[in-house]
This record gives sequence, C-alpha cells and structure tokens, in this order.
Amino acid sequence: MGSVPEAVPHPFDPLSLAEIETAITTVKKAHGDVFFNVVSLHEPRKAEMMTWLADPENTPRPARVADIVVIAPGGKVFDGLVDLKEVKIVKWEQMDGVQPIITLEELMAVEHICRTDPKVIEQCELSGIPKEDMHKVYCDPWTIGYDERHGNVVRLQQALMYYRPNLDDCQYQYPLDFCPIYDAGKKEIIAIDIPKIRRPLSKAPPINYHPAAVEKEGGYRNNLKPINITQPEGVSFKLTGREIEWQSWKFHIGFNYREGIVLNNITYNDKGTVRTTFYRLSLAEMVVPYGQPESPHHRKHAFDLGEYGGGYMTNSLSLGCDCKGAIHYIDAHFPTQAGGVRTIKNAICIHEEDDGILFKHSDFRDDSVIVTRARKLIVQHIFTAANYEYAIQWVFHQDGTIQPEIKLTGILNTYALNEGEDTEGWGTQVAPGVNAHNHQHLFCLRIDPNIDGPNNTVYMADAVPSDEPVGSPKNYYGNAFYAKRTKLATTGQSMTDYDGTTSRTWDMVNESKLHPWSKKPASYKLVSREAPRLLPKEGSLVWKRAGFARHTVHVTKYSDDQLWPAGRHVPQTSGEPSMGLPEWIGDGTESIENTDIVLWHTFGVTHIPAPEDFPVMPAEPITLLLRPRNFFTNNPVMNVPPSYSSTPSQVLAKGEGVVNAADKMSKLAFENGANGSNGANGGSCCSNGANGH
Amino acid sequence: MGSVPEAVPHPFDPLSLAEIETAITTVKKAHGDVFFNVVSLHEPRKAEMMTWLADPENTPRPARVADIVVIAPGGKVFDGLVDLKEVKIVKWEQMDGVQPIITLEELMAVEHICRTDPKVIEQCELSGIPKEDMHKVYCDPWTIGYDERHGNVVRLQQALMYYRPNLDDCQYQYPLDFCPIYDAGKKEIIAIDIPKIRRPLSKAPPINYHPAAVEKEGGYRNNLKPINITQPEGVSFKLTGREIEWQSWKFHIGFNYREGIVLNNITYNDKGTVRTTFYRLSLAEMVVPYGQPESPHHRKHAFDLGEYGGGYMTNSLSLGCDCKGAIHYIDAHFPTQAGGVRTIKNAICIHEEDDGILFKHSDFRDDSVIVTRARKLIVQHIFTAANYEYAIQWVFHQDGTIQPEIKLTGILNTYALNEGEDTEGWGTQVAPGVNAHNHQHLFCLRIDPNIDGPNNTVYMADAVPSDEPVGSPKNYYGNAFYAKRTKLATTGQSMTDYDGTTSRTWDMVNESKLHPWSKKPASYKLVSREAPRLLPKEGSLVWKRAGFARHTVHVTKYSDDQLWPAGRHVPQTSGEPSMGLPEWIGDGTESIENTDIVLWHTFGVTHIPAPEDFPVMPAEPITLLLRPRNFFTNNPVMNVPPSYSSTPSQVLAKGEGVVNAADKMSKLAFENGANGSNGANGGSCCSNGANGH
Repeated sequence: MGSVPEAVPHPFDPLSLAEIETAITTVKKAHGDVFFNVVSLHEPRKAEMMTWLADPENTPRPARVADIVVIAPGGKVFDGLVDLKEVKIVKWEQMDGVQPIITLEELMAVEHICRTDPKVIEQCELSGIPKEDMHKVYCDPWTIGYDERHGNVVRLQQALMYYRPNLDDCQYQYPLDFCPIYDAGKKEIIAIDIPKIRRPLSKAPPINYHPAAVEKEGGYRNNLKPINITQPEGVSFKLTGREIEWQSWKFHIGFNYREGIVLNNITYNDKGTVRTTFYRLSLAEMVVPYGQPESPHHRKHAFDLGEYGGGYMTNSLSLGCDCKGAIHYIDAHFPTQAGGVRTIKNAICIHEEDDGILFKHSDFRDDSVIVTRARKLIVQHIFTAANYEYAIQWVFHQDGTIQPEIKLTGILNTYALNEGEDTEGWGTQVAPGVNAHNHQHLFCLRIDPNIDGPNNTVYMADAVPSDEPVGSPKNYYGNAFYAKRTKLATTGQSMTDYDGTTSRTWDMVNESKLHPWSKKPASYKLVSREAPRLLPKEGSLVWKRAGFARHTVHVTKYSDDQLWPAGRHVPQTSGEPSMGLPEWIGDGTESIENTDIVLWHTFGVTHIPAPEDFPVMPAEPITLLLRPRNFFTNNPVMNVPPSYSSTPSQVLAKGEGVVNAADKMSKLAFENGANGSNGANGGSCCSNGANGH
Repeated sequence: MGSVPEAVPHPFDPLSLAEIETAITTVKKAHGDVFFNVVSLHEPRKAEMMTWLADPENTPRPARVADIVVIAPGGKVFDGLVDLKEVKIVKWEQMDGVQPIITLEELMAVEHICRTDPKVIEQCELSGIPKEDMHKVYCDPWTIGYDERHGNVVRLQQALMYYRPNLDDCQYQYPLDFCPIYDAGKKEIIAIDIPKIRRPLSKAPPINYHPAAVEKEGGYRNNLKPINITQPEGVSFKLTGREIEWQSWKFHIGFNYREGIVLNNITYNDKGTVRTTFYRLSLAEMVVPYGQPESPHHRKHAFDLGEYGGGYMTNSLSLGCDCKGAIHYIDAHFPTQAGGVRTIKNAICIHEEDDGILFKHSDFRDDSVIVTRARKLIVQHIFTAANYEYAIQWVFHQDGTIQPEIKLTGILNTYALNEGEDTEGWGTQVAPGVNAHNHQHLFCLRIDPNIDGPNNTVYMADAVPSDEPVGSPKNYYGNAFYAKRTKLATTGQSMTDYDGTTSRTWDMVNESKLHPWSKKPASYKLVSREAPRLLPKEGSLVWKRAGFARHTVHVTKYSDDQLWPAGRHVPQTSGEPSMGLPEWIGDGTESIENTDIVLWHTFGVTHIPAPEDFPVMPAEPITLLLRPRNFFTNNPVMNVPPSYSSTPSQVLAKGEGVVNAADKMSKLAFENGANGSNGANGGSCCSNGANGH
C-alpha cells in the first residue's frame, strides 16, 4: 500500500499552492493591492459533481474555481470567484455590512498596538503594571462578536488583556480587567471598556506547567515505562491523491480554512457493491458562549470556525507527539493577507489504532470461543483558538460506523477576580484572583447523507413504553416497549432536541431500500448523548447569532451554498435577522421527505470550570456515532481475521483446526511473577471459565 | 516494579483456594452433603476495616470469614458464616421462600434433561425436528425470573430452546417457540409454555461467523497490517498481593462470584498526601428487560449478576487475545456444587494503554508548545451470560478520573418469527425467521464514596440559565447561566433521574474540605450520559423486581450488608415487596447529609436490534466518568513528562533547552511518499501552523 499522487487535482481537492497563486495573481491584476482574506476551493456544484462521480471517464471534470474574499482599501469587502482554468474572475461582488473572517495576521497585529496605546498604558498603570513592563502585557484579540454601540460597518476586535510577568508563564493567570476595542481599518484602539468594579493586578504567585516550573515543584514523575506502538509492515490504508481506501471505506479528504477537514463521497464496499453513505461531512460551525452576565463578557461567544477558521488556526503536527505508530501527514496551503501563500506542514494526520475487542463469544457448554480484535482509522487536525485547543478526530470503524470525536484541551479563558469577591456562580476561582467563567462548547456537525443515493428522509426515534396499561391484554405484564418513529417531514418539524429519557436518536433513511429481513429502510443512525441545550436565553445575543444551536437537530433541503449554519461572514453579525440555518429553515413548510437533505447536528459540553482545569486542561473528549442500521444484510465484519477461534467440533477434536493468531508480541507483566496466580494460558487461548465442572 | 505476594491475606482478598476448602470442610462436617451455592468472602465490617486501614500495624487484623449459601436435600436453603481462623460456623440460618443464585453447574444440567424429556421431544417434533435430531436441540437455561403460577418455593429454570443443525453453527438462529420449565429439585421438566401462535422451525439457510462459514463467503480479509504494542521495560504498575500502585493511585483488587471485580480503598497520592476517594466500587447488579409483551417473554429480564453471577460466568482470559502489551492476570477460585474448588485461570487482566493527548497548548504568537501524552490503566474481566458477553473495564486515568466502561458483545437473544409475521415493533427480524426482541441493559454501579473521609453529601448539579429575563439589569444580554446545585438531603430526595437538557451530574462532596480557591467542597462528580429510564412500566413485574432501575441515582446511608440492590437472593423474587434498594430507601426520611453514604447509579442502553448485530454483535461500549472536581489544588498531571515542550524563551533562543522526547518508534506511513506533502517536521516538533506570517 502506498500514497500515489494524482496527475490533475480531484474536484474535491483543496486549491494547490499553484492554484492559490493563480487566483491571487488574477485578482491583483484586476483589483490591485487588496488584503486577501480567503482564497479557497469553491466546491463543485453537487449535481455536476454527482454526475462526474457516477462516471468520471465520460463526464467533463467539474471546473476548478477559487472562492475569494478580499478587503479592499477603505474596508470594502468583496466576494469573488476565479475560474482557474480560464484564469478569469467570474464573480465580483461588494458585500455591504459584513465582516469576513479574522485571519491570524489580523489577530497578531493587535497586541503590538495595545502595548503602545497611551490609553491602554494608562489602564495598565491603574492596574498596577509599570509603564516599562508593557512588553509583559499580552492580549488575545477576539472579534468583537457584536456590540450594538459599534455595529458592523467598522472591522473590530476586542482585546482580552493579560499580564505575563515572565515570558514563559501561563498567560491566563493574570487577567486584566479592561477591554480595549481595536479598529482593524485604522489599526488603532478606538475605545476601552472599563468595568464598574475595578480589579487590579493579582499579586498571587504564578502556577505554571512549563518544565522549569515543574522542576521547582519536584520534577517530572519517572515511573512511566514506555509503550511502543510499531507497524513493521506499514499501514493498512492506501492514498490516491487525497482519496483514502481502508477496510471497505473509501473517501476524499479535503481541508479548508474554515472547517478544517472535510470528508467527501464516503463509500463502503459492501461485498463488492460500492455503497454511498455520506456525500459530505464536516464540523461546520461552533459557538462558545460564556455565562457571565456582566458586560462586556456577553461578547465572549466565539464562533471559532466562522470567525477565525479551524483551518487557519490549525497546528502543524509532528511525528511521535500527537499520535503514535505509522502516520501519514498532509499539508495545507492558505493565502497571506498580502497575497503570498503560507503552508501548514502536516496539517492533517492519518493513522490506525488497535481498538480492543471487535467481537467475542464463548459457548458456556464447551468453552468454544471466537475473539476478534478491532482496528480504527483516525483522520485528525488540531487547532488552537487562542487559549483552547481542539483536536478534531474523524474515526472510522470497520463495521461501517463513523465516529466524530473532539478532544478539548488547552487553557481556560480567564478573568480577574478581587480578593474576597464572589463569582456569584457565573464562574469558578481556579487560582487566586483567576475567575474562569462558565461556558459551553457547542459544535455543529454538517451531515450531508447519501444513504444509497441522495434522496433520504429523517426519522426521530424514541424508545418508549407501550401505551397499553399494565394488566391490559396487549401489555399484561407491563414490559412492552418499542422505538417510536416520527417522520420529520418539513424543515419546521425537523427542529428537534435531544431527549435522554427516550434515548432519542435520529435515523437518516433511504425509504426505497428496505432491508430484506427487517423490512426497515437502510439507514444511518445519529447517536449523540452530549447535546446540552443552548443556555443563553431565547432573544439573547447568542441565541440570535447562533441559530444553529437552538436545537439538537435541524434538517434542510440541500442547497449548494448552504455550508455554514451561522452564515458565510460571521464576525459582527447582529443576529437581526439570524443568519444561516434560521434563514434556510424559513417558514418551516419546505418538504424534506425523500429528497436531497442536510442534517445539522449541534452537540457539545457545558463547562463549569474547576481548579483541576488550570493552568492547563487535561483533554476532555466529546463524541458521537453515525451507525449503519438495517444498512448491511448482517454483521459486516465477520471476515476480520480472529485472534483466536475454536468451534465446538474443534474442541471435541482436542483443538485440531483451531485458529490461533494470538498476538505474539504481548508478554506477561511479570515474567517471574512471584504471585502464584500469574501465568497465561499457553495453547488454550480465551477459554471460558467453566472449566471446573 | 513487580508483583509481590503477601504472607497473609489482605482483609479485602477473596477467599483463597485453601480458605474455600476450609469453609467447605467445616460446613460438611456439621451439615453433611449439601450443594454449595456460594463460598465467598464475607467482607470485613467497614467500621473495623477503616480502623485497620488507618493503622494496620497497631490494629487487630479483621477476621477472615466465609459467606456461605448451601442448598440442602429437599431444597432447603441455608445462609451461613464460617470463621476461618476459629474454623467454626458462626451463623447458620434457614431461608424460607428464597432461591439463591443459579450456578453454571445447575444451568448445565438442564439441556440434557430437555433432550430426553418426552414432552419436549414431542414439541420438537411438532416444530419439525425429528426425534433422532434431539442432540441438535440446545437450551439456554435462565432462572424463571418470576412466574406467578409457580411462585418461589420450587427452584425453577426456563429453557430457551434452539435448534443447531450443525455443531458449529451460531446457536441463536433457529429458536424454537416453546419454553420448558425445569424443576432443579426434581431435575425434571414440570411444564412447557406453548404460545398461542405456533412458529415451526425456520427453513432459512444458516448465517455463521465461524471460520469455515467465512471461508465459504470469500474468506478473511487480508488487508490488515499488524500493529504491535510492546513494553520493553515492563509495566508501570506494581502489585503487592492484590494491592496495585500506579501513577499516584493505590487500590485493592477484589473479585467475587457475583460482582466480579470489586475495588476497595482507592486512594490517590496527592503530592505526598494519601487521599481517600472511594471505599468500594463495583458493578453491583444489572437487569436486561425485554420489551416483547407476549407471554412468557415478560420473564426474560435477566439479573445477570444477582441471578447467575458476573464472577461465576467469568471468562478465562489469554495473552494476546483480549488485550495487548504487557498483561498481568489474576485467577479466581470458586466452590463447586459438590464441595470441590474450581479455578478460573486469568479471570482478571490488568494492563496499561497509551491514551492519546493528555494536554496540549500552543501559543499562536511564537509557536511555543507543550504536548503531553496520557496513559491509562485498565482492570478488566469479561463474562459470558449465555448469549451475551460483557467486558467490564475499570479504567484509571492519571488525572484522578475513574472511568467504568462496559463493552457489550456476543449474540442477541432471539425468538422464532413466522414467514410474513409482523414483529409489531417489539423486535426486529435480524435474519429470516429470527426475531431479536427490543431490550435494555441497565447496570447498577455501587459507589461507596470516601472523599477525604467517609462523611460525604450528594448534590445534583444542573446547568441552567439565569432566572432573570433578557434585558433585565442582572441578565441584560441574556447570556447568564450557572450550575444549580440541589442538596439530596434524604433518601427520598435522592431518587433522581438523568436530565440531558441540563447536562445533569451528581457531586459527591466532603463539605468540610473547601477548596482554597474555588471555595467549593472537594468532590467527585458522576458524569453519565447513558442513563435511559426503565421502560417496563410502573407496577410491571420488572419494575417491582428491579427497584434500583427506577431512577438514575439513589443514595442510602451506608450499611454493611447492603451490597446488592435487587436483594441478596434474587432468583424468583416476586417484587412484592421490592427487595434491596427500595427497602433501604424506606420511607425516604433518612438523612444522608454529611454521613457515610452509598450512591447507586443505574446506567445503560436501550437496544433496538438491527441485522448488523447478527449473528454476532460488534462491541458496543457504554461508559461514564467519576471526575475529581475541586479536589486537587490544580491540574494534578502537570508533572507527566511531555513529548515535546518549547517555551517562548526557548523559541527565542532558537530551540535551546527544548524538551524533545517525541516517540522515536513512530514512522511515516509511506517512507518514500510520492506525495509531495508527505514528510514530518524534523526538529521543530508540534509547532503551530502560524509559521507563514
């Protein structure tokens, strides 16, 4: 197996370095010096792409088009499209009252200006920081979100301020209490939000996680022996361009500035029949509302994907750090503001992991047994959103299950707390003078199902007791229960919420493909248990701006340009009207039955901080499953080679013919175990405990 | 590190082989030939044990006592206690109207009798099985549960019948439609339940997962390259007797016939201070109700622990099959009916796994970064409950989190379905003629907290919006939310249910230990998202017998003999009155504030079967967390050595002093990757993607 480049880009491929350069040159020629905000793949239109995918040999290849956003002098925003074959601008439109995504370069500019702004220096001095220490003042610039005093005509950032007495200190332990507002057009601080209650710089000693600090506290633990993970024969996957094949799966791995990884045309080879499952999967948006009501903290509700870009903020990964074993990496290319190209080396990593027991069964009569180990494939990127890191994993299982998993780590966003001050329950004092506010991480997964074809329908499934009372003829013993299925026939009906009491799930089904035995339609079931409701209230700024987060599930009819559920240009949207998903849901009457649909799933976690999360947070995973149900004729992984298999007739024949492919690398923990009970079964692997009868 | 035996048994140790023999001899001497049902550790009384644990050198060691259950001739049941030092029976009590646990030996007896019983043969013939094929008829004997026609004086099993045309076939694909009732005293079939609608033997071809069947279907896949996991320097844990020490953790690993693994006296060494967390943790009971209302399926609601024993049914594990790496095994010893001892070799396995990223943070300004990998410890046993297997994992994380995890695999319980017959929603036809009924797996975790001492209190925590409306002075922007804490002051108040909309959790706290910074009490938080309600209705047989499953959480005041929440002797309880937890909750007025308490947590899954689950089920995990919150001063794992760490000052110094302990065993997937984007960062591990600016 190996990695083979494709001669011409696959229509789903991100723009290559050369394509980005072509697009930039084309725009520059027509419009002169502008700030490049986005130069990204304008994804092929689905109808055209589906035709091509069905018969690539005899269908014209969809054109390569660049999606462009620039900021021209004077702050004018233009959306454009560049046809890369024709080398020509095919669309150029000035966008009024919108602010496009904030790039890392724009973020990086703010800190320097804060440090030299007299009013900021004045505030720092008031906080107790001498003028000559301004190089120790840092800021995490966030888009302002929305502030009704400033609107959205001027491009703004709010600077969350911190003092870092020593260069290597954790930045988030000396938060400053004021918040400068930065105008990206003027490149200056235009206002400073100052709270009613002042909170001068804390004098508490620092708590750090860097090696020198750990050394001072007694040093690193030395009681971890190495665990080596090696793949001497290489990996079990193959790449052709960016199309990966692994264990019946085949799909295309895209990447863009915003969503990061985008998976397209996901198929599963079912005993020779290539079956489509999803046309496109991505993490399309997220919002992190903070629960502290005091102004200006209400502005802290980052849409990390729509406002900053999960791709733009992606880490460059490295061998032996972020994953173990045999790893394949893929780079990412993005424009710079000035029209260059920057490359994130190793933006995506791909690897396999052993996944424990895939299935096991013993017959208690004779100890005949089969045990088979599972393997999983992980496609990952990790991005740093100022204080937090998000590791986004797309996990593929052999049995047809897809498991998006997100690990949250990094550092809490913090604010100053006076000595003796009460957090009033809106946060937790995680270290002296450090108030970590309550917050939610709400992610929106965009699921474009293609369950044996594009025409799908969504049902909500609730496990409920029978309506018949105990003692009645139809439920005499009262034990009857079933999965109540509710068709979501319109966009209005689709707005549904998780219900833990009924173990609610959602089935994406193809009603024209009934299972031969169950007579139920081929489906993928969304199983997601971490789906808190949006805690900011109806009518609140967050509620208005993050329409997607109002419900666990929304379903819309497919439309090519409906990719991002908080809108295309998210910074400084007012939420009046709500952009994105609420627009697309419309009056709720559109039919979503047996048609090409998109399911939008909001999930996540409500985080009430604790001191254990500080000064750096142990990773917290959030996960969900897309599970094939009534899709395969039966268990699709029976042909994964077992570690051990003995049938009853082989047991009778004293083990003749038994499959013993037990992992020979595994060893006993204590070779000369003084403990009499220590010792593995030699030949009789995995036998049942009934051997005493 | 190693494994060191203890000279004398630890008071928490299971009875040794010799101790079991002593107990049996003692009982035999006094009471002659009886059937030994249970000979197990009578756990030391907590008050005495806590005193000993606090000062083992100067405190008398708690006595070793055997807990005995026997069935005497005539079916008389006796509960007894044998003092193993005094070699004397200290309690002997006849128990009326109870049936003790069904042993594997008792289960094994039924099939033979079914095969030779004329009435069963007659039913088989009616089903289409010729007399000479009776050796191809199998039964899974279950305790009868409760059947009001038979009561509980006679010891009964119901025989779930199957036809297995070939010895190696999956047993569950030709279910027979009738159900013989077996009297364990008489050793004969006393009745046969025959359904109104008959369902003769299916003639559909078999679907098998054994190697010969897979070969016939095209053979095993050969596209999985090996993943080797090795620990060349051995494991990072140490065992003294059955006490394990690993990464600040120390605890005792017990095992009994019923719960399987029991963990005791779990402590965490917090920078030199040994802090208690839990006195005892175990999976104490479970119930698997089936949702098919047709009689006699209402009797299918197995209490696998209380009725059969998770220990008794435990698999003998084997190197290289059930886990990989360096494994330590511990055996288990149990009595046989006749008074011998059987040993389950390798009943428990203990091993470590790499657990991905423990924490990571990059500074977007300069790409300084730290990334640290996590390790976890897994203590596991796997038991086979006729058709299902349950892999019970106790996962310990370095950060103080304990994660019980259960993997369900094995085979669905099935029943016959006629051609064209509708399952009416109570089950799924997973293969022709095979109806897998809806069911739940509800587990009860017994949590005996000892959070910095035995006097603890439980609070329910709900993430809720502020009560103040949007626009009001206290919640002007409507974003305020907090964790509403409700004290569970009495056993009555403790009966609480999971609420997904508020991300409900439960905190076990020590109110006398306030965190110096957060001012919140030291606590462990129960985070459990898979907590479906009991679907059999109030007043149903299951509801009455499985009182523990009525709520997600119950809390009781500690009492030595309250171990098992469906009662001590579970088979054939009528649920009138409900045994175990409902008795202990009593009138609900008992105070559970700031006292020694036990929290009972019911969690699990509702399983609506699908053809993908047949003929053997890919493992489905269920998990939950016990997380320290406001327990540690701050992040307790900062001293885990990082894979890579560069501080801002080291970045400025061009990498001088950077910690680079990246795993050297990891390799690129494609060494000569033709793909230009393939290649790892050499020295500059884990740098942030902002390197283009």
